[in-house]
Amino acid sequence: MSRITERLQIKYPLIQAPMAGGITTSDLVVAVSNHGALGMIGAGYMNAVALQKQIKQIKQRTTAAFGVNVFVPGAIEWDSKRLSTSKELLQPYYERYYLRMEDISLPTEKELNDNYKQQLECIIEEKVSICSFTFGVPSPETIKQLHEHDVIVIGTATTVKEAMLIEELGMDMVVLQGAEAGGHRGNFLADPLDSQIGLMALIPQVADRISIPIIAAGGIMDQRGLHAALCLGADAVQMGTAFVLTKESGAHPLHKESIIEASGDDTVLTNVFSGKYARGIRNDFIDEMNQKNPALPTYPIQNVLTQPLRKAAKAENDSGLMSLWSGQGASLGRKQTVKELIQELMENNASNY
Amino acid sequence: MSRITERLQIKYPLIQAPMAGGITTSDLVVAVSNHGALGMIGAGYMNAVALQKQIKQIKQRTTAAFGVNVFVPGAIEWDSKRLSTSKELLQPYYERYYLRMEDISLPTEKELNDNYKQQLECIIEEKVSICSFTFGVPSPETIKQLHEHDVIVIGTATTVKEAMLIEELGMDMVVLQGAEAGGHRGNFLADPLDSQIGLMALIPQVADRISIPIIAAGGIMDQRGLHAALCLGADAVQMGTAFVLTKESGAHPLHKESIIEASGDDTVLTNVFSGKYARGIRNDFIDEMNQKNPALPTYPIQNVLTQPLRKAAKAENDSGLMSLWSGQGASLGRKQTVKELIQELMENNASNY
Repeated sequence: MSRITERLQIKYPLIQAPMAGGITTSDLVVAVSNHGALGMIGAGYMNAVALQKQIKQIKQRTTAAFGVNVFVPGAIEWDSKRLSTSKELLQPYYERYYLRMEDISLPTEKELNDNYKQQLECIIEEKVSICSFTFGVPSPETIKQLHEHDVIVIGTATTVKEAMLIEELGMDMVVLQGAEAGGHRGNFLADPLDSQIGLMALIPQVADRISIPIIAAGGIMDQRGLHAALCLGADAVQMGTAFVLTKESGAHPLHKESIIEASGDDTVLTNVFSGKYARGIRNDFIDEMNQKNPALPTYPIQNVLTQPLRKAAKAENDSGLMSLWSGQGASLGRKQTVKELIQELMENNASNY
Repeated sequence: MSRITERLQIKYPLIQAPMAGGITTSDLVVAVSNHGALGMIGAGYMNAVALQKQIKQIKQRTTAAFGVNVFVPGAIEWDSKRLSTSKELLQPYYERYYLRMEDISLPTEKELNDNYKQQLECIIEEKVSICSFTFGVPSPETIKQLHEHDVIVIGTATTVKEAMLIEELGMDMVVLQGAEAGGHRGNFLADPLDSQIGLMALIPQVADRISIPIIAAGGIMDQRGLHAALCLGADAVQMGTAFVLTKESGAHPLHKESIIEASGDDTVLTNVFSGKYARGIRNDFIDEMNQKNPALPTYPIQNVLTQPLRKAAKAENDSGLMSLWSGQGASLGRKQTVKELIQELMENNASNY
């Protein structure tokens, strides 16, 4: 048993990526943890009440370890010109679904910070043993507080420098997000476009510089990717897209379809959904917005502006307006249960971990 | 012995990337081929006379197999506005080195096509057994002609679709260039920025779709990368940056220094040197040009415009104006001989290939 599986109390060096926005249902987290990997709640967009409810649900259905991921809140950049540009561009989409832009309430920094604090309090109160962070690093005080409550603290890095900072701050492990990864980029020191480093180059360079365990994420879909990541110096892998496709995930059926139907070169990095760069299957909304090439509000403003649209698109089965997050390995995915996916990944190799 | 080593008549599944611009000296190609890997001449910018001379030199010093890489010429896009923008931006650099822009002679499509034909004639005449292509695919007639002379024909792809086309055209092998790779992007169907697929995702998706051997390139610097690429489904690897650093390479000492001193997140994709996107260590010229964010002439025009500057920069030891091509694995590199590099790569594993 390797140090990381022992530390995380899991059988396999496999973590289910904490995907926000309803994908990490209790069904998904429970199934992953019950089958020997680490289930993770993507709590990014949740309030503490909803988070607590989900944690309690999961604890009723498994005694295995699971974790929670939270977003580190940053400063909100207010730019009235970008805001009005975006509102103007989104207006036709709002009209398509009979939505009213006047109903949107933009968040304040205080609200985001308060929510983050309440999420952390909930994690401590519910004695969740693992907490990972994205979009930045927690304060030294937060790390200290979590450690005092025996919570394992995991950071997310996209570059060598970010990984080194995470170790320096005393965090316990690092998720190394390669350029291949689906969903939002976790960069926080580096520029999102300049920091697109493939795992082939990123893992060994980080492995040579830090001694905390490395969890590799991005484009890993099957045994080949798992073994390659371990060859390169990772201690475990975190997989997102492969779990999106499972029966237990909360992803919209058309989101799953778009990944299944991918032919290999289908993902793009885009900021049109949230104001922060993220990788997903190219669709109408991305193409239409790119054509206009607007300067958009940054995260979380743009995210709040498009949220009603994405919600309506799901209700109306309109994949042209959904955020179809996916990693570059999309076409390797298959629809299956969590059990089947984990069995396939570990077949003939489980004894090595 | 695997099918690819047998086919290429090499001991190890390792190919030295054909880097144009004086890096693949005869010393380098001979040393690589004599130590069990495949040496490659980067003939992209050479005329047939110089190419023939180098082939003859190499044949005098080794009986082992080696290959030649050529650039497939494309249409030249003339855009007088972009041309004058670029000339204006480059003028201060020309003045710095007392160079005259009037001395530049821009190439014609006919000249490029003629040179390409002469390069291929030379390869056939000199009975070089391996020829690889970049920036496009050769015509069916060219492939047929090379096959009639028992030349193994290798294409370069950056996406699943490009790799499938290369197989469809009857080429014998494909170099799969991941987003991690240094130097010029080999994309020819895909957009250069949209086609940045990391090897972790690219290799298995291609391996599932084609049956010709796959040579993985990009960010591979040591045994970890070699093993990972083979895990993912590659048959061999092609390494560039690691060979740039060898004693035998023709890279400028400051080019080698810039790679050695890299700290992990140092490369960027840029079109400022040649009009075609390429990956290298960030320096003054890239930063200064990016600040102005100009619409530049496409390859090969911009390449010809900056050529006198790059040449002068080498003579004057000014790394701020050199094209410091490097893959994303830069900081894994070490200065050593070809023999040492290959020994290190194959140590304890040679018997497996």
